Amino acid sequence: MLIKSKPYRTIWSHPDDSTITQIIDQRKLPHEFIIVDLATVAYFCTAIKDMYVRGAGLIGATAGFAMYTAALQSRDAHFAEDIQQFARELSATRPTAKNLVWAIERQLTAMAACSSVQEKRDKGLEVATAIADEDALFCKQIGEHGVALIKEISKRKNGQPVNILTHCNAGWLAFVDYGSATAPIYQANNDGIAVHVWVDETRPWLQGARLTAWELKEEGIPHTLIADNTGGHLMQHGMVDLVIVGTDRTTFTGDVANKIGTYLKALAAYDNNVPFYVALPSSTFDWQIEDGVKDIPIEKRDGDEINKITGRAENGEMITVLVPPENTESANYSFDVTPARLVTGLITERGIVAANQDAILNLYPEKR
Amino acid sequence: MLIKSKPYRTIWSHPDDSTITQIIDQRKLPHEFIIVDLATVAYFCTAIKDMYVRGAGLIGATAGFAMYTAALQSRDAHFAEDIQQFARELSATRPTAKNLVWAIERQLTAMAACSSVQEKRDKGLEVATAIADEDALFCKQIGEHGVALIKEISKRKNGQPVNILTHCNAGWLAFVDYGSATAPIYQANNDGIAVHVWVDETRPWLQGARLTAWELKEEGIPHTLIADNTGGHLMQHGMVDLVIVGTDRTTFTGDVANKIGTYLKALAAYDNNVPFYVALPSSTFDWQIEDGVKDIPIEKRDGDEINKITGRAENGEMITVLVPPENTESANYSFDVTPARLVTGLITERGIVAANQDAILNLYPEKR
Repeated sequence: MLIKSKPYRTIWSHPDDSTITQIIDQRKLPHEFIIVDLATVAYFCTAIKDMYVRGAGLIGATAGFAMYTAALQSRDAHFAEDIQQFARELSATRPTAKNLVWAIERQLTAMAACSSVQEKRDKGLEVATAIADEDALFCKQIGEHGVALIKEISKRKNGQPVNILTHCNAGWLAFVDYGSATAPIYQANNDGIAVHVWVDETRPWLQGARLTAWELKEEGIPHTLIADNTGGHLMQHGMVDLVIVGTDRTTFTGDVANKIGTYLKALAAYDNNVPFYVALPSSTFDWQIEDGVKDIPIEKRDGDEINKITGRAENGEMITVLVPPENTESANYSFDVTPARLVTGLITERGIVAANQDAILNLYPEKR
Repeated sequence: MLIKSKPYRTIWSHPDDSTITQIIDQRKLPHEFIIVDLATVAYFCTAIKDMYVRGAGLIGATAGFAMYTAALQSRDAHFAEDIQQFARELSATRPTAKNLVWAIERQLTAMAACSSVQEKRDKGLEVATAIADEDALFCKQIGEHGVALIKEISKRKNGQPVNILTHCNAGWLAFVDYGSATAPIYQANNDGIAVHVWVDETRPWLQGARLTAWELKEEGIPHTLIADNTGGHLMQHGMVDLVIVGTDRTTFTGDVANKIGTYLKALAAYDNNVPFYVALPSSTFDWQIEDGVKDIPIEKRDGDEINKITGRAENGEMITVLVPPENTESANYSFDVTPARLVTGLITERGIVAANQDAILNLYPEKR
């Protein structure tokens, strides 16, 4: 998608040296645009854990390239042992993210099928590239399916802008391209359908304010930033036509782990008969866990992410400020789980489907 | 209540000159403690509108003293005309706050019953003081009634800490003393009942992080700060025993206007069978409006309160930082309305009552 009118992806091989991966440092957006080189597994781990990169698809794609780097770093004589150790280190960085383990396992399986270490390394680059390309393709398809929902509402409203609320950033910055929740919005915009997006700022990390607002601005989509507390009020007053969010892990039974606060918006949507959709590529499904609320591990991050906020000061400098009294204890749960009963439907690369086991397994019969 | 172990109220007459009112500038808390003199109605209006003071009871008490100042400023020959003009200016500062108009009307009625201008002015000080004293007394009584709820849960938990979630600041800083939502908590603490408070940081203005966390710290009450998005997750996992919030206006039918986001927490409490109580003195009731969601006016404030955040930088300076891209449009609705059906009960100075018209009018029969 566009940054200052120039098309980008969120991750790519260095044009002059494919052993180096390049990413955008998303911690600095929207005020600074910095490209970072990743050349060792340790740096990949930092980039994922400290949120240089974040978002379901991009974490998966980054893990894909990280495993290629892991293959380069694994000793010839101890390849199996080393690559497993790197895989464990990478898996531990973000416990809720399904795409992380999915990409790591996909790489391990592909490499295991190769005989020589050189073949394993070549395969690593091939699979990393395939994961990234597939992520972009699947997001594009999510957009093509999801746009039908927007088109229908637009028709009902006689072309008045369709008001879509989204939480966190499930935009193209959270994937390789297009995004999941945003893909139908970008598709609608391309198709000439008037849309307006309510952007939850998404505390504590403020992905909505920092990233979603920025990418919508770069793409020229009308949007309004709101505090996370606002969605219920808007829905009570008919100001939201549709909610679309992303997910970091969705069970095959339809329970949706996503950025903390998603559950609250889903409750409000349910209470006000606003359709609540979750957009995801199949790589985000968890085919093992049945009860998402009970069993999806919820990452707990540093309380400083709540107590301290970084932004641009008047002099242009990036400054971090403390809000509560010094040494205030904070609990920073990163995700919550929205039970399937509150989800109107899932928008996947294969089509739109109800959030229940039967419907999901009908769409992915190979997972039965 | 205590600030650095010294007891304070939030508003008082200047000890050397009763024509001047003193307040704590709450915009600077918790990092700076500054007392401000208010000597003209214009300055009172600024103090209310720009949130030097905020919170249901304190807005009412401030309006009480403001009307005394208005009486001093009204010209002898044009008293009736001038005082009405000041009353209109004050009423316009915070449209959702019921205590504001309540205090202004109480002053106008009391002054109207006096014959001379001097008597009206004397009455103004008398009523302002009475409003403040009554506010403190009513909050104390709210604490005495509300503590029963906490005591009962504590018994059921065999003395394990009772986890109470609160939103915004309905603490003593929002009233003259004790607070509404916090009064039962302070009372429990006095009674030796173990409590722990989940403090919603409360975007956009961050009253929870800035004020509630600070006053609980000064009173030595265990507490944990959370992003507003977190309450649902905590309730899903049995980590909240009770929700107590304040309100800026509650209809006689039990609909509760309170800080934006309250409705979302009420939905989560309802979905997880967590009792959801609202604490309020009778001055916060609206005896006219029947449908709160439809008819309570909701204040919309400057979007900059969302886009820009002020806190203490590492060098100790108070700095304001911009989070989203420059010129991002934000919608800053300050309040939402929680329908009575989601409210377990109201804690008033006369006792605890169900959130419906019959129960409320039984408690306040003079309002029938």
